[in-house]
Amino acid sequence: MATKRKVRTLIAIGGHEDKAGDRTVLKEFVSRLTAASVVVATLASEVSDEMWDEYKRVFRSLGVKKTEHLQLEARANIPDHEERLLEGLQGAGGVFFTGGDQLRITSKLGGTPLCERIQEMYRNGVPIAGTSAGASILTETMVVSGSEGSHRIGDALRLSPGLGFLPAVVIDQHFGERGRIGRLLGIVAQNPRALGLGIDENTAVVIEDEKEFRVIGSGAVYVVDGRSMTHTNVSEEATDLTLSMFDTRLHVLSRGDCYDLQERRPWPARAEVAK
Amino acid sequence: MATKRKVRTLIAIGGHEDKAGDRTVLKEFVSRLTAASVVVATLASEVSDEMWDEYKRVFRSLGVKKTEHLQLEARANIPDHEERLLEGLQGAGGVFFTGGDQLRITSKLGGTPLCERIQEMYRNGVPIAGTSAGASILTETMVVSGSEGSHRIGDALRLSPGLGFLPAVVIDQHFGERGRIGRLLGIVAQNPRALGLGIDENTAVVIEDEKEFRVIGSGAVYVVDGRSMTHTNVSEEATDLTLSMFDTRLHVLSRGDCYDLQERRPWPARAEVAK
Repeated sequence: MATKRKVRTLIAIGGHEDKAGDRTVLKEFVSRLTAASVVVATLASEVSDEMWDEYKRVFRSLGVKKTEHLQLEARANIPDHEERLLEGLQGAGGVFFTGGDQLRITSKLGGTPLCERIQEMYRNGVPIAGTSAGASILTETMVVSGSEGSHRIGDALRLSPGLGFLPAVVIDQHFGERGRIGRLLGIVAQNPRALGLGIDENTAVVIEDEKEFRVIGSGAVYVVDGRSMTHTNVSEEATDLTLSMFDTRLHVLSRGDCYDLQERRPWPARAEVAK
Repeated sequence: MATKRKVRTLIAIGGHEDKAGDRTVLKEFVSRLTAASVVVATLASEVSDEMWDEYKRVFRSLGVKKTEHLQLEARANIPDHEERLLEGLQGAGGVFFTGGDQLRITSKLGGTPLCERIQEMYRNGVPIAGTSAGASILTETMVVSGSEGSHRIGDALRLSPGLGFLPAVVIDQHFGERGRIGRLLGIVAQNPRALGLGIDENTAVVIEDEKEFRVIGSGAVYVVDGRSMTHTNVSEEATDLTLSMFDTRLHVLSRGDCYDLQERRPWPARAEVAK
C-alpha cells in the first residue's frame, strides 16, 4: 500500500503576525495541520495565560477544534508531571511556540522526553510553528540577544543551542522593525556555514523538509549568505571593534519568493502581484 | 615650477560625530584644511544659531583660527546679499555642512553662484564635509526621506538632486541607529548604477578625487553594490509591495577599511588594531 510522503514543515514567523485581519500567516499554519488540534506552547512568555487566551481564540476562529496549552513552571522531566504533559500532545495536529524569551523555552524544554516527542511529531509531518522567540528556537544554533542598531563585535552578542529542527541556519525576528541587520551579519561573519535569516513582523518562512522555504506575509525576509565573504575582523581581539565583513551575498525576499537552502539560491514569486 | 597636485576631498559623516572626546572625525577634517579657516553652513538646521555656536567652539578648540557662518534666509541669488555671501567664502580652507533637513540646503543653495563658488573651491582642493543631512547632499542624487524599519517599496521613498560633488553614489546616515538598510536597498534596487553607502553615527568616509574612500570613526559603513542583482520587483505597479532584491553584494566596513569606487572593491585596514 502506498503511503503519502510526510512533508516536514517548519513555520518561522517574525513576530506580530496579524490575528484580526486576513491572518495570512496563521491561516497557512492551520492549513497544514495534520488534525484540527493545536498545542500552544507559551513557555517563552511572562504573560503566559494572556498569550494562551489570545491564541486559543484566534485558532478557534480559524476552525481549529481543539487547543491545548503547553506551559511549564519547571523543567519538563519531572515524573508524573511529564506523563500529563506527554498526554497533552496526543493527537495534536500542530505545535505553535509563542514569543517572549527564547531561553525560557530551551532551558525548560531542551533535552526532555517532551522535547523528543515534539521532534518525533515533526518527523511524522506535524507542522511546528513559532513566532518571535518561538521562531528563533527552531534552529540548531539560535540568537539570544545582541545590540540593535550597532555594529560592535563585542557587544553582548549571545548565541545558544536551539531546539535543533533546522541545522546551519540562524533566525532573527522583528528584523526590519528593530534594526537587527548588524547583529545578524555579525553572527554570519563568525561562521558563514550558518545562513542568516532575518524575518520582518507579520512575515514568515514556510520551510519544507529543511530544504527550501517560501515567504508569506506582508514584510521582507533577508537572507545573508556569507560563503562568498573575503574578509572579516570578528576574530580580532579588541573588544571595542566594529564589524568588517566584505563580499557578503544578500537577498531580500518578499511574499511568494522562494529559497533553496541546499543550493543557496532564491527564485522569484510567480505573478503574485496579479493575484 | 612643479605645483602640488590638488586632492579633491569630501568627508561624509553619519551624524552625531564626537565633539567633546577624541573628536576623530572632526580632527580629520581640520587636518585637511587648506587654511585655518572654516565656513560652517547651517542651512539645514532649524536651530541654526545653536549649531553655529557649537561648531564654532569645537573648530576653535581644534586650532581653527577663523570661522565663518553661512546661513541663508532666502535663496542665495539675490543681488547685494550674494556679494556679501561670496565674500564670506574668501580664503576659507574648508566648508562644513551641518545636519537638519537636506532640502533646506539644496533648495536655497542649489544652482546659485554661491554654490558654484563652493564647487570651484572643491575642485581647487578645499575639503567639503557634511554631517547627517550635510552628508547626503554631497552626491548627485540624494535621499530625502523614506520609511525606516520597513521594506515597502511605495512607502514615501523620496529622492532629490543633491549638490553633485559625487556621482553615482547615494549616501544615507544615522544608518545602523535608525534601521535604514531597507530604504538604502530600495534605492539601489531602483538603479544599481548608484552605489549605496550607509554611514553610522560618529563615523565617516573620507573620499579622495571621487575615486576611493577610507572609513574613520567608531561605527560601520555599509556598501550596497547592486550590480550583481539578478531580480527585483521595484518596477511592479502594486504600491503595497514589499521589496524583493536578489544577489546584492554587501560590504560592512569599519575604521581603516578602504573602498575603490571605480573598481567597486574594498580592502581591509592594515593593522589598525595594533595602533
